[in-house]
Amino acid sequence: YELTVSDGDVVGRVNGLAVMGEDSGIMLPVMAEVTPSQGPGQVIATGQLKEMAEESVKNVSAIIKKFSDEDISEKDVHIQFVQAGQQGVDGDSASITVATAVISALEDAPVEQDVAMTGSLSVRGDVLPVGGVTHKIEAAAKAGIKTVIIPKANEQDVMIEEEYEEMVEIIPVSHISEVLEVALSGEPEKDGLIDRLKNITGSALEREIGGNTGRPSPQ
Amino acid sequence: YELTVSDGDVVGRVNGLAVMGEDSGIMLPVMAEVTPSQGPGQVIATGQLKEMAEESVKNVSAIIKKFSDEDISEKDVHIQFVQAGQQGVDGDSASITVATAVISALEDAPVEQDVAMTGSLSVRGDVLPVGGVTHKIEAAAKAGIKTVIIPKANEQDVMIEEEYEEMVEIIPVSHISEVLEVALSGEPEKDGLIDRLKNITGSALEREIGGNTGRPSPQ
Amino acid sequence: YELTVSDGDVVGRVNGLAVMGEDSGIMLPVMAEVTPSQGPGQVIATGQLKEMAEESVKNVSAIIKKFSDEDISEKDVHIQFVQAGQQGVDGDSASITVATAVISALEDAPVEQDVAMTGSLSVRGDVLPVGGVTHKIEAAAKAGIKTVIIPKANEQDVMIEEEYEEMVEIIPVSHISEVLEVALSGEPEKDGLIDRLKNITGSALEREIGGNTGRPSPQ
Amino acid sequence: YELTVSDGDVVGRVNGLAVMGEDSGIMLPVMAEVTPSQGPGQVIATGQLKEMAEESVKNVSAIIKKFSDEDISEKDVHIQFVQAGQQGVDGDSASITVATAVISALEDAPVEQDVAMTGSLSVRGDVLPVGGVTHKIEAAAKAGIKTVIIPKANEQDVMIEEEYEEMVEIIPVSHISEVLEVALSGEPEKDGLIDRLKNITGSALEREIGGNTGRPSPQ
Amino acid sequence: YELTVSDGDVVGRVNGLAVMGEDSGIMLPVMAEVTPSQGPGQVIATGQLKEMAEESVKNVSAIIKKFSDEDISEKDVHIQFVQAGQQGVDGDSASITVATAVISALEDAPVEQDVAMTGSLSVRGDVLPVGGVTHKIEAAAKAGIKTVIIPKANEQDVMIEEEYEEMVEIIPVSHISEVLEVALSGEPEKDGLIDRLKNITGSALEREIGGNTGRPSPQ
Amino acid sequence: YELTVSDGDVVGRVNGLAVMGEDSGIMLPVMAEVTPSQGPGQVIATGQLKEMAEESVKNVSAIIKKFSDEDISEKDVHIQFVQAGQQGVDGDSASITVATAVISALEDAPVEQDVAMTGSLSVRGDVLPVGGVTHKIEAAAKAGIKTVIIPKANEQDVMIEEEYEEMVEIIPVSHISEVLEVALSGEPEKDGLIDRLKNITGSALEREIGGNTGRPSPQ
Ligand SMILES: [Ca+2]
Ligand SMILES: [Ca+2]
Ligand SMILES: [Ca+2]
Ligand SMILES: [Ca+2]
Ligand SMILES: [Ca+2]
Ligand SMILES: [Ca+2]
Ligand SMILES: [Ca+2]
Ligand SMILES: [Ca+2]
Ligand SMILES: [Ca+2]
Ligand SMILES: [Ca+2]
Ligand SMILES: [Ca+2]
Ligand SMILES: [Ca+2]
Repeated sequence: YELTVSDGDVVGRVNGLAVMGEDSGIMLPVMAEVTPSQGPGQVIATGQLKEMAEESVKNVSAIIKKFSDEDISEKDVHIQFVQAGQQGVDGDSASITVATAVISALEDAPVEQDVAMTGSLSVRGDVLPVGGVTHKIEAAAKAGIKTVIIPKANEQDVMIEEEYEEMVEIIPVSHISEVLEVALSGEPEKDGLIDRLKNITGSALEREIGGNTGRPSPQ
Repeated sequence: YELTVSDGDVVGRVNGLAVMGEDSGIMLPVMAEVTPSQGPGQVIATGQLKEMAEESVKNVSAIIKKFSDEDISEKDVHIQFVQAGQQGVDGDSASITVATAVISALEDAPVEQDVAMTGSLSVRGDVLPVGGVTHKIEAAAKAGIKTVIIPKANEQDVMIEEEYEEMVEIIPVSHISEVLEVALSGEPEKDGLIDRLKNITGSALEREIGGNTGRPSPQ
Repeated sequence: YELTVSDGDVVGRVNGLAVMGEDSGIMLPVMAEVTPSQGPGQVIATGQLKEMAEESVKNVSAIIKKFSDEDISEKDVHIQFVQAGQQGVDGDSASITVATAVISALEDAPVEQDVAMTGSLSVRGDVLPVGGVTHKIEAAAKAGIKTVIIPKANEQDVMIEEEYEEMVEIIPVSHISEVLEVALSGEPEKDGLIDRLKNITGSALEREIGGNTGRPSPQ
Repeated sequence: YELTVSDGDVVGRVNGLAVMGEDSGIMLPVMAEVTPSQGPGQVIATGQLKEMAEESVKNVSAIIKKFSDEDISEKDVHIQFVQAGQQGVDGDSASITVATAVISALEDAPVEQDVAMTGSLSVRGDVLPVGGVTHKIEAAAKAGIKTVIIPKANEQDVMIEEEYEEMVEIIPVSHISEVLEVALSGEPEKDGLIDRLKNITGSALEREIGGNTGRPSPQ
Repeated sequence: YELTVSDGDVVGRVNGLAVMGEDSGIMLPVMAEVTPSQGPGQVIATGQLKEMAEESVKNVSAIIKKFSDEDISEKDVHIQFVQAGQQGVDGDSASITVATAVISALEDAPVEQDVAMTGSLSVRGDVLPVGGVTHKIEAAAKAGIKTVIIPKANEQDVMIEEEYEEMVEIIPVSHISEVLEVALSGEPEKDGLIDRLKNITGSALEREIGGNTGRPSPQ
Repeated sequence: YELTVSDGDVVGRVNGLAVMGEDSGIMLPVMAEVTPSQGPGQVIATGQLKEMAEESVKNVSAIIKKFSDEDISEKDVHIQFVQAGQQGVDGDSASITVATAVISALEDAPVEQDVAMTGSLSVRGDVLPVGGVTHKIEAAAKAGIKTVIIPKANEQDVMIEEEYEEMVEIIPVSHISEVLEVALSGEPEKDGLIDRLKNITGSALEREIGGNTGRPSPQ
């Protein structure tokens, strides 16, 4: 099935990027929904996630629980890798994709559909480096994506072919609040949400901006 | 055992369609019941579901929990593949069948028994494409089914033999609310239910209708 | 050990029928008890149940929870296959036996001990067909049973030898309420219980009686 | 280590009987204690129980929960096979031993230490037959036991050597209330406890005494 | 690392004794802490415990829950075999060591550090025999231990070399209250604690003292 | 990816040290976050922890729960080994790193980023010895670390090459309160926190200072 990329925006749907085999990238969309729970609230992820992918969902849940205060205790967070198929999902490079989809669903904030992203995430909101950045960017460009978000720590790994350079804008980020700034479409709601994230989990980020030139990046 | 298809309607029973081996389809009915729970409410599916089928039930539960607000927290949702037998159920193509059976049981809304369906489902209500559509439609026609619901994204995959073309009407859909429109028999109750589903999970659908021509389908 | 069949009645004990190997049937009694729970109420089945048998207990529990409203939330339902031995119990053909034993224990309603039964069950109370009906009836007749309940969908499979024809009455049924009508001994209590089951889970049954000639049987 | 048998009585300790290998019996004491629970009350059995032994503990728990009404919901029931060793415990023939030890602990009722027992148990209190009765009785006699309780259904299996006939009295029983009558030492407390068990779970027993000559024994 | 034995006392730390390979003993200290719980209280043991060791912790927990009434329902009990290493802990001979460490932590009662111990435990507080007593005593003596507690039932198994006879005092015990009498350093607190243990779980012990000469030891 | 070490401080991030293969050390940072929980509070650790590493997290949790009284019952503690990768984390030598990261997150107390550490931990706060100390110190020195915390019991194992001796200060410790004294940057908050830890879990430590010269170290 062909993925058609629009310039519209959709709540709870984010274009992720994955690597297949050695040297080819694919788009791997993530959808999220937040619902009342039956028992205690749970985070439920489908798409046959392997161990590292399951752990990345746990790391993302730290930010979600911190971000949304306590009104999540009787809510279930559903995360679906809609094209995972039989082979399932491995690795933690979809962490920022998952986080963005869930925050979009939680806040009813639409996500730009011509944006794609790849990046791991710390439990405190830092965007951590991933593998295969070049192949992923090229796959996004081929699919019609206009903007690709990558971890700042992967900036020097980008070696895309000339033909793609004009097609996509590459935006390196180091905190989840920067991801949301780019990916969410609604200007006013977006900034409120980012402010809150910064205030709660972004203290490391602010500290860095505040003057520490040598803060170690976790990778 | 032979499946006789009637033009009556039954609460909590929906004709699904599955593929056996390489090239033959079969009817696979799903039954559902909603009961008071013992501990915290649970979704309980039987028929020896393999991993992808279990995950598809989790995805369906997102829509059920969203649809029925919070009165499901002390209810158990039972889902039964009544003809799964020893080999069990695999894949996610019964997602819309399961969703329709559960919504029928929950709302006490009868389901048309001369309708059969196949389709995967996102946690937000989008109908996603599946495999084996042609074989499934032919099996439905042979069994006496009058109407077959398939995912819109599978429309171009339909290549049924001439003899079946007269026997069944094929209805392509892209959202669970359209499935319910076709499959539930009671006109007034049905529309109330569909309205609610649209209002709660159908925002993507409405948005699409509202003007975005290029909304990417998740497949 | 020999099973002696009486014409008395006992609460919480029902004669089931099973197939051993290729071509021989045996009596397999099921006992049930309902007790206060320690934590949240549970359904606890013993007799080394294999996967299909465990799932059939889950399907039966749907009817029990629906039937007994919410006073089961702090009760444990114990189900025991008293002669399962080392090899355990497989398949779903004891579903109506289990349902009858639990309803008997729950309602303190005695079960006729010269009745034996075999039949699968949907989560909405439909009696579904099973295998080995002829061997099971013959085993029941040899053991002194007077009445054997079988699924209506298995009526045409009965090919018992002449010598057994006089010994047992065969009663085909299509809903659990008909099973209880035959198996419970107390006339007044029985009808109250059956009425209630019909009102709650028997809507499909009533609908069928109401005029739909072609309602598809789930098998 | 040698087991010395006394004519004293101890709370929460009962002499069980087991078979080792093909043709030798051993004493296998069971100890029980009832304590406040941490979370919801649990039944906790140690001695490396195999699957049938674990299920027999579940069956016993039905009688315990029924017998002690609801004050067990915040209590843990501990059951210990004190000489199980590395090989663990298999089978369900210690069911009446476990039941007696737990009831003794729950009621603070001392158990006669010159009594040993073997017998399976239904969830409704019926004593069901077991294997190896002759070897078990001889082992009990050798250890100095004065009274051995066996299932009534095993009465015809007893073929002990002449030398042991004088040493032990064999008491066949068909309900757990009869086991307690023999094994508990305190006359008044014992009868109160037995009365209650009869009233709650012993209806089958009373019914049998009341006139049904042919009630099928569950074996 | 060398273990230096002091004559001081420490809360929540007890010198256990274990056997390595065929014929050598080692000191194996156990530490315990009691903390507020997050969910329902739990007993959490670390040191890669094998099945028998895990079950011995469950048996010890019976005494702890009984001893400390109900204020343990929102407390976690942490037990740590601090030198278990990669090979982990097997067997049940550290039961009295674990019980002493936990009671020390619970009551803030210091444990004599020149005492070492070995012994299994029943759920009612009886000290049961273990293997390798001689090797364990010699290892304790070499490490500078002054007093070694062993099960009374192992008294006849002690065959230590002459050189160790002067170095350690061997104290055989048959109930956990005797272990605490020797191992806890604080005279007044200790007796209060022992009195309580005797009153609650020590009835068997008192009974024995009261006149029954032939009470069977559980081994 | 290169780890740049700064002289700044960050909340919830601590430089751990690990051994790779036979003879090389690496920096292994640990991040922590404390969030509202959905159900009962949990400790959730990611980085594909092997059994000993999982147990070390349980031991650390004892100190956290003790330290933070009961306000942790509706909080989740997230622990992330941010560079664990596919091979995961084994052993218990990151215990003090994990404890420091969690306490930092819980108290919002910044951690010095030019400090690295290695050390196991008892459930009562004692720092226990680990392996590979020399390789770990050299790896820390190469990465630009100024201060390395090691267990006091490993002091005699340090055999670093001359070139590293000038680069790093080595601080041997025997209690978690000493680790916090060195690693946390904020003077006033730090001392309050240490005082509390000493008062609650540090009784063994104080006792030692109070006069017992020969207190056995647990290793
Ligand atoms: Ca746009
Ligand atoms: Ca934008
Ligand atoms: Ca119709
Ligand atoms: Ca219709
Ligand atoms: Ca009768
Ligand atoms: Ca009748
Ligand atoms: Ca006596
Ligand atoms: Ca007596
Ligand atoms: Ca001393
Ligand atoms: Ca002393
Ligand atoms: Ca600094
Ligand atoms: Ca400092």
